[in-house]
Amino acid sequence: MDLAQRIEARGSEFLLFALTPPRLTVTREQAQKVADVTQKRLAPVGLDGLVLYDIDEESDRNPQERPFPFLPTIDPATFRARNLEGWSTPVVVYRAVGKYEESDLRAWLEAQDADHTLTVFVGASSRDRQSATSLVRAHELWARTRPDLRLGGVTIPERHTRRGDEHLRLISKQEAGCSFFVTQVVYDVNAAKNLVSDYRYECAARGLDPVPVVFTFSVCGSLRTLEFLGWLGVDVPRWIQNDLRHVADTLQASYEHSLGAARELIEYCRRMRVPFGVNVESVSIRLAEIEASVALAQQLERELRRPR
Amino acid sequence: MDLAQRIEARGSEFLLFALTPPRLTVTREQAQKVADVTQKRLAPVGLDGLVLYDIDEESDRNPQERPFPFLPTIDPATFRARNLEGWSTPVVVYRAVGKYEESDLRAWLEAQDADHTLTVFVGASSRDRQSATSLVRAHELWARTRPDLRLGGVTIPERHTRRGDEHLRLISKQEAGCSFFVTQVVYDVNAAKNLVSDYRYECAARGLDPVPVVFTFSVCGSLRTLEFLGWLGVDVPRWIQNDLRHVADTLQASYEHSLGAARELIEYCRRMRVPFGVNVESVSIRLAEIEASVALAQQLERELRRPR
Repeated sequence: MDLAQRIEARGSEFLLFALTPPRLTVTREQAQKVADVTQKRLAPVGLDGLVLYDIDEESDRNPQERPFPFLPTIDPATFRARNLEGWSTPVVVYRAVGKYEESDLRAWLEAQDADHTLTVFVGASSRDRQSATSLVRAHELWARTRPDLRLGGVTIPERHTRRGDEHLRLISKQEAGCSFFVTQVVYDVNAAKNLVSDYRYECAARGLDPVPVVFTFSVCGSLRTLEFLGWLGVDVPRWIQNDLRHVADTLQASYEHSLGAARELIEYCRRMRVPFGVNVESVSIRLAEIEASVALAQQLERELRRPR
Repeated sequence: MDLAQRIEARGSEFLLFALTPPRLTVTREQAQKVADVTQKRLAPVGLDGLVLYDIDEESDRNPQERPFPFLPTIDPATFRARNLEGWSTPVVVYRAVGKYEESDLRAWLEAQDADHTLTVFVGASSRDRQSATSLVRAHELWARTRPDLRLGGVTIPERHTRRGDEHLRLISKQEAGCSFFVTQVVYDVNAAKNLVSDYRYECAARGLDPVPVVFTFSVCGSLRTLEFLGWLGVDVPRWIQNDLRHVADTLQASYEHSLGAARELIEYCRRMRVPFGVNVESVSIRLAEIEASVALAQQLERELRRPR
């Protein structure tokens, strides 16, 4: 059974790896080279799927200066079609729906093969933002055109800490067709557990089965990356921040924190019988951080109980 | 080496058990019976010290109705002197300093034996409160009369979550003479780790050695006790609250959460080289909860590394 079917069946314990496509300014050859190097690097990891992010300029989300400059990236659908033809697992293609006209989004949805492509719709990062297609419209479009294509949603445990209603958002997205959720990078395990717990008990109260929640983990090899995580809205608990600021090897320390966080959430979801997946990304483009992310995915591969 | 000397030497890994004296309305015989039963119950536990709380009416602290009624309790110094004569370990006698005139507090301080008595001063629970002696004055009094008597302070990790400066309070209390700190009941491990971490790094930056931090744990056998913990200002994370509300055996689940929290903090403090102690109390007076607290102390006794 592969990823789409496992998600459809509310399966659990799958492993994903997430990439951001190269910058829009690279040549075709450079883009292909990035794709080749990445595929080679990921070949030893037994992934159930690859995630391709769709980066939108989010300067409106956070008035503070972005620690890394925003540089537009290749459309993930294009990168996948053009540079990752030989890739063997299903691909979860993100769609920042506000960037696309409805007709373009529809054309893309219609062209996908549901066995090999899944998608995650991301709404505009701020309500004030002009967006070509709203998340609600995108969900309607999906339901009308390709309800067989597995659709996921984004979830933010930090939002649950602030507002306490993220579990209700999950349920309404689930009612709109989402059959899985992907978190942003998790460092605050407690926030993630609070969300999973509230979601699970709300599902039980409504007679719904919870759908898989995919937790994203990433290493953080420098204080610059830590700052970027903060800018992205990731809550890194004070004690972990202090650790990362004071240890000799920030990358190694963050690897251990992420592994510990993943283990704690894996154990918790197993106990709560909430289906889950694990997604590893590299927030930074530094080679050492990318390699540590791949090592993290390999370690987690050994810890997940997967049908083989 | 016993408790006062170990604290003086910034030792670590000691085990305390905390009691609230009986109500003021009990007869002398009833008070003695409570003391006898308690001593018998605690005899098998290898405690380094006994803590006696000094309960002050705290209706001013929280405008919400108290889930259990406030009933004045016997002064812990009286209870200790009158009913716990045969008790073998040092006793940490709390003093809610706002309740006492300076002359009474001085007389009590002067009468203590520093090998057998330690004290923790607790300030008034609200600034608006009329108090006979302020915490600052009590510290001055202690410094002038009995600086050899080990003095502790109270610390509240939840306050660190809200204000972010609890580590600075610890350092200023340390400068005022405190040689150990005791937390209120801990369910939010992350908050406690954040506080320990900030305290440890602030000490390092100032060239100070951290003093022992004693973490208090308690079981919670009913939703009424959970409500009372909330009223006392203890943050119980949502996922733990949900667990306690939905499981068949709330007491057993809370025992496991508290044990897990204690283990995580023990491991963390060992790694951070912050000296620590563990204190177990029963928030409730129900027999099953008292017995589970004693069992928790016995389990923690096996896990602490103590000089014997």
